[in-house]
Amino acid sequence: MIDLLISKIEEKQNPTVVGLDPSLNFIPEFIKTEEFEKHGKTPKAVAEIFLRFNKEIIDQTYDLIPAVKPQIAMYEQFGHEGIRAYIETIKYAKSKGLFIIGDIKRGDIASTATAYSNGHIGEVNIEGESVKIYEEDAITISPYLGHDSVEPFIEDCKRYNRGLFILLKTSNTGSGEIQDLVVDGEKIYDKVGDLISKWGRELIGERGYSSIGAVVGATYPEQLKELRKKLKHVFFLVPGYGAQGGSAKDLKGAFDKNGLGAIINSSRGIIAAYKNQKCANRFTEKEFAKAARQAVIDMKADIQSVI
Amino acid sequence: MIDLLISKIEEKQNPTVVGLDPSLNFIPEFIKTEEFEKHGKTPKAVAEIFLRFNKEIIDQTYDLIPAVKPQIAMYEQFGHEGIRAYIETIKYAKSKGLFIIGDIKRGDIASTATAYSNGHIGEVNIEGESVKIYEEDAITISPYLGHDSVEPFIEDCKRYNRGLFILLKTSNTGSGEIQDLVVDGEKIYDKVGDLISKWGRELIGERGYSSIGAVVGATYPEQLKELRKKLKHVFFLVPGYGAQGGSAKDLKGAFDKNGLGAIINSSRGIIAAYKNQKCANRFTEKEFAKAARQAVIDMKADIQSVI
Repeated sequence: MIDLLISKIEEKQNPTVVGLDPSLNFIPEFIKTEEFEKHGKTPKAVAEIFLRFNKEIIDQTYDLIPAVKPQIAMYEQFGHEGIRAYIETIKYAKSKGLFIIGDIKRGDIASTATAYSNGHIGEVNIEGESVKIYEEDAITISPYLGHDSVEPFIEDCKRYNRGLFILLKTSNTGSGEIQDLVVDGEKIYDKVGDLISKWGRELIGERGYSSIGAVVGATYPEQLKELRKKLKHVFFLVPGYGAQGGSAKDLKGAFDKNGLGAIINSSRGIIAAYKNQKCANRFTEKEFAKAARQAVIDMKADIQSVI
Repeated sequence: MIDLLISKIEEKQNPTVVGLDPSLNFIPEFIKTEEFEKHGKTPKAVAEIFLRFNKEIIDQTYDLIPAVKPQIAMYEQFGHEGIRAYIETIKYAKSKGLFIIGDIKRGDIASTATAYSNGHIGEVNIEGESVKIYEEDAITISPYLGHDSVEPFIEDCKRYNRGLFILLKTSNTGSGEIQDLVVDGEKIYDKVGDLISKWGRELIGERGYSSIGAVVGATYPEQLKELRKKLKHVFFLVPGYGAQGGSAKDLKGAFDKNGLGAIINSSRGIIAAYKNQKCANRFTEKEFAKAARQAVIDMKADIQSVI
């Protein structure tokens, strides 16, 4: 799968992934009012609101970006209606040629991991019929339970040409509490990095990167640079740019000498751009998706300046 | 919430939690045939099959057990229809007075953790209306991202009288790869145990246990015993009994001198009991739920023998 992602990044000349993490807090009133009138203040209304919002964002950005990353929590919190909106968002984004990274961060024992893997990147078996359910191209997962919790996903990556981004050094302030602990002179995230590198060895594509990638936050630029140098075959998904505080110069270390090796996520910074002070004078609420388009263009230029 | 769980354990004189992890592999043919005829080989059929199966299991066991633990992966893999079955299973189990532990093992940065927490143990806000979605009494979560990924859940535990079981020493074979690494002479799971103990200090109930508990596998009896001694206020959710290989004598160390301090999960060992060789001669397929009842009675006696 990694070659597919890289080809899309090169085609768009843009390593930006748009985080499709909708929130009622920043979705324009005109969308909300219409759907609440139709369905009441219900999870069903929220699902319809999220779908309309996402589709407009996708319509205005799909020609500029290689990938989108819906964060499943934003949908899951609204129950089955939310999950329906998550699945339909993926379907719509795929119809526009986008690569889908499902940000699900699952991690569980092998039999449970198999169920997650079947649903998200593989197929479920319904009495002899194979059915694809979520159809993400890649998903994020947690390594905390060790190799047997990761293997079912890796097997499905091989079988269905999918990919993983495994949590390595996350972008949040508390990420160091466990990930930075030092074992035999080496930090936990270094150990996990070695495991990820090992797990991905059989899935290295034509461009030298593996379909088993890692999540490394833009908010820790030193570690990002150090890990990039060390983990030659591991592609990085980098959250933390924009709203979480990471800037373009923090991203420099994420890329190799060819400008490859990482895809940079921004969520609120793009999809809620019309609310930013910088944009607020230029775009009306109705033009929220155009504001998102401009934010993508600005972010692309910002990142290009350091690769 | 911990006092509620303890009161239910004492009322039933049974620290068993039944893992409601349905699988088409072991659900009786007569249930499957009927639903596939009505709905085709679809996720909707699977959802109806899971619901019928779960309800019969609950009907035959609710008077004997304090709690059930649905594993969300088994449902989530079938998309939004699966999640609907998960939510309706919880609703039904609650109507029978059971305590619900949602086995979701989520772990993400604070803003995302807030979304998971709102949906599962708190409330989502839909344009000023507070709506409860999943309504588990407690959930499992992962500590890998550190304190800020856990805090939103703890806040909701205080606000809504809910509880957590945080992954500490999991039951799978690979659990040692990260959890057993040694830092400054102490294992990671010891460090995590100290964090869990600290996080739970404000939520200690009348019986001396906190609503912030931990997951410790029955498959590591030595560590279970050692952690029980060390973490006086931390209630344990113990998976790994039965199908995963843990036996009653492995559980002895999980309990304090009053026979409290732990709740023991069994999933397939109970809900698929009618397929076990021991039961197969005594129960027909139609009696699968009666076989589950017998398995609960046997497990209760087995555990009582060591407390």
